[in-house]
Amino acid sequence: MKELAIGIDIGGTNTVIGIVDKSGNLYSEKKITTKGYGNFESYLNVIFLLIQNELSAIKETFRLSGIGIGAPNGNYYKGTIEHAANLEWKGILPIAEKFKKQFKVPIHITNDANAAALGEKIYGGAKNMKHFIVITIGTGLGSGIVINGNLLYGADGFAGEMGHTTAIVDGRLCGCGRKGCLETYVSATGIVRTYQELLSENQIIQKQVNNSEEIYRLALQGNASAIKAFDYTANILGKALADAVAYFSPEAFFITGGLAEAGDLLIKPTKTYMEENLLEIYKNKIMVLQSELQGSFSAILGASALVWNEY
Amino acid sequence: MKELAIGIDIGGTNTVIGIVDKSGNLYSEKKITTKGYGNFESYLNVIFLLIQNELSAIKETFRLSGIGIGAPNGNYYKGTIEHAANLEWKGILPIAEKFKKQFKVPIHITNDANAAALGEKIYGGAKNMKHFIVITIGTGLGSGIVINGNLLYGADGFAGEMGHTTAIVDGRLCGCGRKGCLETYVSATGIVRTYQELLSENQIIQKQVNNSEEIYRLALQGNASAIKAFDYTANILGKALADAVAYFSPEAFFITGGLAEAGDLLIKPTKTYMEENLLEIYKNKIMVLQSELQGSFSAILGASALVWNEY
Repeated sequence: MKELAIGIDIGGTNTVIGIVDKSGNLYSEKKITTKGYGNFESYLNVIFLLIQNELSAIKETFRLSGIGIGAPNGNYYKGTIEHAANLEWKGILPIAEKFKKQFKVPIHITNDANAAALGEKIYGGAKNMKHFIVITIGTGLGSGIVINGNLLYGADGFAGEMGHTTAIVDGRLCGCGRKGCLETYVSATGIVRTYQELLSENQIIQKQVNNSEEIYRLALQGNASAIKAFDYTANILGKALADAVAYFSPEAFFITGGLAEAGDLLIKPTKTYMEENLLEIYKNKIMVLQSELQGSFSAILGASALVWNEY
Repeated sequence: MKELAIGIDIGGTNTVIGIVDKSGNLYSEKKITTKGYGNFESYLNVIFLLIQNELSAIKETFRLSGIGIGAPNGNYYKGTIEHAANLEWKGILPIAEKFKKQFKVPIHITNDANAAALGEKIYGGAKNMKHFIVITIGTGLGSGIVINGNLLYGADGFAGEMGHTTAIVDGRLCGCGRKGCLETYVSATGIVRTYQELLSENQIIQKQVNNSEEIYRLALQGNASAIKAFDYTANILGKALADAVAYFSPEAFFITGGLAEAGDLLIKPTKTYMEENLLEIYKNKIMVLQSELQGSFSAILGASALVWNEY
């Protein structure tokens, strides 16, 4: 009988829900908005209904092996979403329990970066690796750290917050209240801040940019400030990767998320700066790769990988 | 029958060899110099002879469960010592193989900080913990990181080099060739450097110090520069611990090694600075403790813990 898993990626704006098999073949994909349901139960009821519809539309016989959920501040140990800043529902949400009651299958939850790391392990470039780190660079910077084939969760389930390690002592103020966090520099918002700073430092009068895609386009057109902004970002990321190597000794880093779509413009210099800062024993041994899973489908794969990983 | 293990701690200057039981009772302790044997084999032959003598002196019946070795650049996966800067023998030394041939029992090797972490787990303050980090602050700074009850070795066996993560970008030149490594600030040599810098910055004419113990004594006597040197060291260590918490989410840090003997003079302000820099969810949750295993005996316990940990 066909084994299927449901992968759900809960973002601040949208929620995507998919049904996949173990090879990553997609049987169904739906997107709904995450906002505007009033309470959490109403939101879940919409998802439940949607899943029931999608499952009943599958023609062949199958067994539902489980449901994997990627969500901001998803706690793997407790099956909860805890104090997620960009969701409408506050406090601790017992999401795994609610799903369990409805579907009577194993439910697993973690944050989106951890889900991305499992996605890379089950479906992507890390299939044959036991030690690697996936870095998702979007609005912020998340990381999923795999050690000996297992995700690093730590004592409380929230380990792996590379975005909130210090890149520059007393540097930029971060949303978390700390200063100099890596994600204040290496993120879609961070590179915009860098670009604006470069303009004002050099007293260049130029159209302001609204997002990192515009900086990417400017860089491709040869705009010096945009190119410098990517180089500055890569420098800080490369140094952070070198530190992560000293901690974890991984085989590879996989870069994913919005800013990773800049490809070699970000990844090539990042690799160079990492090499400059690596301990001697690690030089020319650690890969820095673009994730093999990109786009919205990758979030479904990552979430569903939670199911196969436990299976 | 009594189960016994041999713990061997190989340092740049001395090698200590002990026989212990699982409760940490010491049956024998010997110290020899590590230097002046010409080749590695001659050194090992002295150790072999010494162990045979000590074993034959034990009156009760026993079984030798294994031998654990803590050594600079000890590679757990390969059973080798690799390119240890402070040993006389260069290259890759297949030490586990040599011991195995002689004693026909399981042989385990790792570096001294990892051995200290296992010692803390088997005999010390981490008996009931699954996630903790032991930091040894001596000439340099080493760390042994325990995740889910297991030491972090990484892909190559050398993971957990917290001493070579960046404390200050483009900071002090480190022996490893990098700049701003944590151990250039937080170590016995680092605090001496800090103290000298404070004297010259403030144009204080004062007797130079030769080691960290003198700074400790001066601080206890109320010397402002010495007190400031400890505070500066604690500040940098506290920030590094906060970053390590974001990565690993440990239950506790255990501080050991020469500089840890300063006790509260180092540990209290370190805890304060860590708290100031912690992510909100970790505040007032992470312990910073002095190791329960101190002195030369602790190195034997740490090395022997390698045996019980695998047992």
